[in-house]
Amino acid sequence: MQTCTNLELNNVKITSEFWNRYRELIVKEVLPYQWSVMNDEANIHIADDPQKNGTTKNSHAIANLKIVASKIKGHHSGFPFQDTDVYKWLEAVAYSLRYHPNDDLKQIADKLIDLIAEAQEYDGYLSTYFQIEAPERKFKRLKQSHELYTMGHYIEAAVAYYQVTGNEKALNIARKMADCIDNNFGLEKGKIPGYDGHPEIELALSRLYELTHEKKYLNLAYYFLKQRGQDPKFFDHQIEQDGFDHDLIEGMRNFPLSYYQAAEPIVDQETAEGHAVRVVYLCTGIAYVARLTGDQDLLTVCKRFWNNIVKKRMYVTGNIGSTTTGESFTYDYDLPNDTMYGETCASVGMTFFAKQMLQIEPEGEYGDILEKELFNGSLSGISLDGKHFFYVNPLEADPTASKGNPGKSHILTRRADWFGCACCPSNVARLIASVDQYIYTVHGSTILSHQFISNEANFDNNISIIQSNNFPWDGNISYKIKNPGENKFKFGIRIPSWSQCNYKLQVNKKDVNLPVKSGFVYIFVESSQMQIDLSLDMCIQFIRANNRVKNDLGKVAVQRGPIVYCAEEMDNSAPLWLYRIKEQAQARYHYNDHLLNGIGTIKVDAEVLNEDSKDDLLYTTVSNKPYDWHESKLSLIPYYAWGNRDDGQMSVWLNKEY
Amino acid sequence: MQTCTNLELNNVKITSEFWNRYRELIVKEVLPYQWSVMNDEANIHIADDPQKNGTTKNSHAIANLKIVASKIKGHHSGFPFQDTDVYKWLEAVAYSLRYHPNDDLKQIADKLIDLIAEAQEYDGYLSTYFQIEAPERKFKRLKQSHELYTMGHYIEAAVAYYQVTGNEKALNIARKMADCIDNNFGLEKGKIPGYDGHPEIELALSRLYELTHEKKYLNLAYYFLKQRGQDPKFFDHQIEQDGFDHDLIEGMRNFPLSYYQAAEPIVDQETAEGHAVRVVYLCTGIAYVARLTGDQDLLTVCKRFWNNIVKKRMYVTGNIGSTTTGESFTYDYDLPNDTMYGETCASVGMTFFAKQMLQIEPEGEYGDILEKELFNGSLSGISLDGKHFFYVNPLEADPTASKGNPGKSHILTRRADWFGCACCPSNVARLIASVDQYIYTVHGSTILSHQFISNEANFDNNISIIQSNNFPWDGNISYKIKNPGENKFKFGIRIPSWSQCNYKLQVNKKDVNLPVKSGFVYIFVESSQMQIDLSLDMCIQFIRANNRVKNDLGKVAVQRGPIVYCAEEMDNSAPLWLYRIKEQAQARYHYNDHLLNGIGTIKVDAEVLNEDSKDDLLYTTVSNKPYDWHESKLSLIPYYAWGNRDDGQMSVWLNKEY
Repeated sequence: MQTCTNLELNNVKITSEFWNRYRELIVKEVLPYQWSVMNDEANIHIADDPQKNGTTKNSHAIANLKIVASKIKGHHSGFPFQDTDVYKWLEAVAYSLRYHPNDDLKQIADKLIDLIAEAQEYDGYLSTYFQIEAPERKFKRLKQSHELYTMGHYIEAAVAYYQVTGNEKALNIARKMADCIDNNFGLEKGKIPGYDGHPEIELALSRLYELTHEKKYLNLAYYFLKQRGQDPKFFDHQIEQDGFDHDLIEGMRNFPLSYYQAAEPIVDQETAEGHAVRVVYLCTGIAYVARLTGDQDLLTVCKRFWNNIVKKRMYVTGNIGSTTTGESFTYDYDLPNDTMYGETCASVGMTFFAKQMLQIEPEGEYGDILEKELFNGSLSGISLDGKHFFYVNPLEADPTASKGNPGKSHILTRRADWFGCACCPSNVARLIASVDQYIYTVHGSTILSHQFISNEANFDNNISIIQSNNFPWDGNISYKIKNPGENKFKFGIRIPSWSQCNYKLQVNKKDVNLPVKSGFVYIFVESSQMQIDLSLDMCIQFIRANNRVKNDLGKVAVQRGPIVYCAEEMDNSAPLWLYRIKEQAQARYHYNDHLLNGIGTIKVDAEVLNEDSKDDLLYTTVSNKPYDWHESKLSLIPYYAWGNRDDGQMSVWLNKEY
Repeated sequence: MQTCTNLELNNVKITSEFWNRYRELIVKEVLPYQWSVMNDEANIHIADDPQKNGTTKNSHAIANLKIVASKIKGHHSGFPFQDTDVYKWLEAVAYSLRYHPNDDLKQIADKLIDLIAEAQEYDGYLSTYFQIEAPERKFKRLKQSHELYTMGHYIEAAVAYYQVTGNEKALNIARKMADCIDNNFGLEKGKIPGYDGHPEIELALSRLYELTHEKKYLNLAYYFLKQRGQDPKFFDHQIEQDGFDHDLIEGMRNFPLSYYQAAEPIVDQETAEGHAVRVVYLCTGIAYVARLTGDQDLLTVCKRFWNNIVKKRMYVTGNIGSTTTGESFTYDYDLPNDTMYGETCASVGMTFFAKQMLQIEPEGEYGDILEKELFNGSLSGISLDGKHFFYVNPLEADPTASKGNPGKSHILTRRADWFGCACCPSNVARLIASVDQYIYTVHGSTILSHQFISNEANFDNNISIIQSNNFPWDGNISYKIKNPGENKFKFGIRIPSWSQCNYKLQVNKKDVNLPVKSGFVYIFVESSQMQIDLSLDMCIQFIRANNRVKNDLGKVAVQRGPIVYCAEEMDNSAPLWLYRIKEQAQARYHYNDHLLNGIGTIKVDAEVLNEDSKDDLLYTTVSNKPYDWHESKLSLIPYYAWGNRDDGQMSVWLNKEY
């Protein structure tokens, strides 16, 4: 019997019905579909790009690589970062092979890696846009070029693919890329004292370092973080020196430096400003490097960003980005629901950030937010059929408004087949395919169970944990721990913030009352077997926002367990704004196996106004026309499942007597 | 004793304290100030143009004319329609000379007319932008050129200036312009089968016709109205034929044809679409021509537009234009308060439209809307000191939001010194200077008194009317009619919609009870003297919107008489959204002589929530943190007077228990 000093998680097999449906969808629908799209073989309609920069009706992503590899002739098409669609797909493939081995798919991926190797230059450089269209401008337009962002995504894919398949070639390409970047960037004479306009390389280099233990990759990531914003004129000087002729991405010249988190050194940045996806990718990189180097300044920075985002700038669904202009954060408590952005990629990025923070310290809030993103903000990015996607995730939508008011035209009310800027579909795919990596975090001799997703997990020392539940619909979570070597370790279970007032815990069928410490209860394990049963509070909750959020005043969001609900027009009588939840409203939960692949639905007591007539005056006195309420119900479905039926209004926040 | 057949209104002298303060401001501050701005002699800060097309930090409007007249050398600066600032100023000068003769000012104006004459080409053409920068493109870019719009504004100014001063030269320039346009436009061979992208010439030609009785001007106006939208490809064909190189006004190529009301013939247009100012200028032209020609199709069109705007698309303050994109209408009942546009010019244009409709038929609603615009939507465009202006008039504003959320950056919370696109300052000036023309409308032997603005009016047959009141603060309106010839005529008084449930009318000190017919009561006059006393309902009213307006649900606007009120942060504790007017709230009115040049203020019983702390959770359950109301009051001021003190929040719509 020994105390474990450094437990290792070996593998996790997901047994959750909820998640396995999505994970099978990734294998059966999403990956083949995305592959055909990237090969321009799918018969699809590409949505007007939210950034209105789409230049192609095809993806052309594989063709760009083939052109560079001299397999075909032609021009680059798509965004400068078009390659990343391929890399994120490859990363998702890697994760899928772990739970669903597939020789055909592996063969396609291996061949793709061969193609990528052929496209890579001798010095390691790879960005098809610059190789095809502007080889003389490599690394000379970093504000808009996305070159390091692009290679970062390949490095992430390669790390994943190597870990699953052992494909050395894939890893070598990544090493060559990282070496190329290392040779070109830094404060040493002759190197570029800069960084990419879009953070990503920092987290990618950290992952490469974790795999290879090659210190220079970590040093390079550290350099990029420290150098960012040191010289606010760096980007524009580069462009001036190279001679400005046109934006690589239309309109980007007008964005402020804060859009790129490059207005000042990151240690000086007090709030999360600018493009939300850039912010969370940057934060993930900061958290990685802070953990791997122990740098306290960086740790302070990532906690500061975390707190600003989570406590002041996040929607109740976990979505972030309050404006379509620059897909950006705006200011504290500014959370409009019908003009917001809430990009899928930003929510996916928040899961990366949360996961890293959990690896730094066992704080339940990181698990809370990770859960919020997994079950709401990220998941809404993909349709139930796996072939349609949201880029923007509003909390309030109305097809009439999206069509009729240009300030809401970025809000689609039906998921699109694909996007000109297709960052989101592959991002959500790689998240779902790797969700097994988001359930446990190990700190020395402590195993943290922070996500309630049924699984069978194996740790070293022959420790195994079987987690069983029907989450998110049911709050009964059971763990069977096998510990044949009778190792001593702590098992921490997150008590979600939505359940902290009311939960029940049993160890070996006996009630226990343990203190909640930073969101976790800790159980000391030393016997060879242990049964833990946790019963969470699955009451329906009416959530209100801090009243500094103007847009949510007098409204509630309805939540049950981790699931945030919404009302859709088709389940109610439009317009949704005429409903009001009564002061002492009762709400009833019902699992409906036949609706939207099986969902928990909620009905809430409400009252509703008769819709005024078009012949009624536009304005009249309250006394002339008093409010005319009658009894009704509001029918709600999970937010992640909205927009899977006919087009119509949707709203998360619902009027409530207050 | 005879029945009048066609009464004529000779002149109106305003005695209203409220309006005379503004009218003296026009003379003493606004006109000299605007003259110095247009001559680039004012030390001002020009606000970022709402359309972001400002190319100059100076107005340069007079300089452009001097360049064309070969007085100085240089390039054109400003918008293609920069000349109109001068013309609208000249028109305001004309009106001012009627109530405030000023030889110095008249001399300046006469000299300006000399300059304009020198700038005009032999054929009558005058548009300094094209004359200086692109003479080969005259009339070849009508979608964006504003040439007829520009000349239309001169024609309006000339008609007014000639009527007041008899300056023949001014009128001859206008005639030559109209002849030039007549020579170039029409369906005859060799003429341009088109029209201007910005309606205005139609109403200007109608005014010129009314003065000169030259039928061809009316025919030309009729042609423009009938031809508009007949060939939806006309504009783009013109540009293609001329060879496209760049937009005259950046971004305009992206606007749909509906922006220009050119997507289809106007008789087919069902709703008010596109740029709000264009719509109301067009409507004014349609109403003019419908009246002057008796064309029933045009009459139907202008009534249809009227109803759509007033009954579905107008803010409670009279402002119109629900989106900054294209400064446009959106769709029925879409009236967001904090992202809206509500351009000052659009409200001014509505007064033109309403006045024309009143000349067509004695319908009280036209007078109601005219009053709404005069006392609210238009008047808010100018500061109390006459030197600061709103282009955009929001119903809800917050400096933090304007600064921090790009979707609200078009909303200024302080009036600007001037604008790159300076259409609004001179438009509101010419309206105020001519408000004497908006009080009475004569139909044959009927005099309609539709605006309550103290005045002394003289009609032919020696009929005179002295209207006395302290409106808008007091609802007692008295008329002394002198009719020494004992002519028989009807005197119609508008009973405003806000007073139709409760008003008192006395004729010669005796109560009378007359039917309200389409918003008017009619008194038959035949004696040599008559005293009429009307007492209007000045109760404070809580106004609600039709509940199809999502953004106003659960809110009220507070109105007293014609004045719509708003809450400003400085009179209350911020944030304003934490207040709620109680169900049976009492409201008290108090005239404060010392505030904002003298205004009626209102205090309403309300309750207010304690502002949540920044340390409070962003989201929590309602049961964890119930609403914490305490008694309070809301202090309100007239909407037109907002933004004249320190920067802060403002809101017209206020939460109300509902």
